[in-house]
Amino acid sequence: MRYELYYWPEIQGRGEFVRLALEDAGAAYADVARGKDGTGAMFKLMESEGVKHRPFAPPFLKAGKLLVAQTANILLFLGPRHGLAPREEAGRLWVHQLQLTIADFVVEAHDTHHPIASGLYYEDQKKEAKRRAADFLKNRASKYFGYFEDVLARGGGRYLTDKRPTYADLSLFQIVAGMRYAFPKATAKLEKKMPRVAAVHDLVAERPRIAAYLASERRIPFNEYGIFRHYKELDA
Amino acid sequence: MRYELYYWPEIQGRGEFVRLALEDAGAAYADVARGKDGTGAMFKLMESEGVKHRPFAPPFLKAGKLLVAQTANILLFLGPRHGLAPREEAGRLWVHQLQLTIADFVVEAHDTHHPIASGLYYEDQKKEAKRRAADFLKNRASKYFGYFEDVLARGGGRYLTDKRPTYADLSLFQIVAGMRYAFPKATAKLEKKMPRVAAVHDLVAERPRIAAYLASERRIPFNEYGIFRHYKELDA
Repeated sequence: MRYELYYWPEIQGRGEFVRLALEDAGAAYADVARGKDGTGAMFKLMESEGVKHRPFAPPFLKAGKLLVAQTANILLFLGPRHGLAPREEAGRLWVHQLQLTIADFVVEAHDTHHPIASGLYYEDQKKEAKRRAADFLKNRASKYFGYFEDVLARGGGRYLTDKRPTYADLSLFQIVAGMRYAFPKATAKLEKKMPRVAAVHDLVAERPRIAAYLASERRIPFNEYGIFRHYKELDA
Repeated sequence: MRYELYYWPEIQGRGEFVRLALEDAGAAYADVARGKDGTGAMFKLMESEGVKHRPFAPPFLKAGKLLVAQTANILLFLGPRHGLAPREEAGRLWVHQLQLTIADFVVEAHDTHHPIASGLYYEDQKKEAKRRAADFLKNRASKYFGYFEDVLARGGGRYLTDKRPTYADLSLFQIVAGMRYAFPKATAKLEKKMPRVAAVHDLVAERPRIAAYLASERRIPFNEYGIFRHYKELDA
């Protein structure tokens, strides 16, 4: 089966967590909104009266007749199908728990540049962004990365749950990459205390399919429209 | 089996979504942190070296040997066990997708009074809170409730997925109740356009076990420590 992924074509954003899973799995998929009039197709499907389970927002994935939205939910669906999550319940719940914690991190990383309103420009909330970013880097990013470092230390494996990566490891790679892009100075400092997390980043980046993906045009470069944005004034 | 729920004893917060599911199910559970030195027990378990799947934060649920964290993940676990979610995959994913959308709403509702930092007092971010709350009420709350109204209209049932409530309906009840408490004026206006959502609130409130729970001391009253806080100056 060929999946259809629907997400904003200009950014990595939340869609990237799904792209990484599909790429690592070697799954056949179309990144629909990146095609000709793809955004139109995305809106059309999202608003179609015929859609039974309508998404609130992209990303969403079409798998045959099934339409699944919410990033972590899409990964919950894909994981066991492609060897990116355990099949048994306790393992599945644990990987999903880690993914939902990453999702919380992603909201907070986004809100560093949009603390007041996602519908306003960064320039209209720059002062507030400076305060929020400073708190995020000092208190929140360190707490989250410290947590994942601890999970890796307790687990004793190279990846979050074992010797094999799950979709949560692919997502951990992505938030490390995003933080390095958005806050290079602050992240360099943070990384001194998270060698295991940084090692997961490197292991994921070296996986043959991921390495090929990252080197391809399918990987949209980081930019100042997505979740992880580099504004020098926000980097401590 | 008797569940053990661990969550902050002073607030409804995210734990309330789990409490509502346990109460509606008539499940046997201890609200551990509300007992003597319960918060101590909560931290002890959370930080114990013996815990294999450590939570990032409360709430978490102990079910025999299993420890599950992240609100939506706990509900994913409880749902099919207690008739609060379909057992088949497509239905389970759909209910979880709705729950994750409610979780997004909850973050935004919380951030109306804490747009800069959760570690700072409201008084230290009051000016920013006014801006964020105004945007939330104007652009975001209406979008979310409009979405759930549309889901109900498309489904054609009394509840989000069918004639029977799922944990997502219980959670929808909770966000309506929370919004009525936090923003009574703005919510009264919003409700003119969401009769179906308001009807779900009422149906849930009338369910015998929920009604008994709401009338009991187990239901912590809304207050200014939780997610939904009433600050007159933030209500439009």
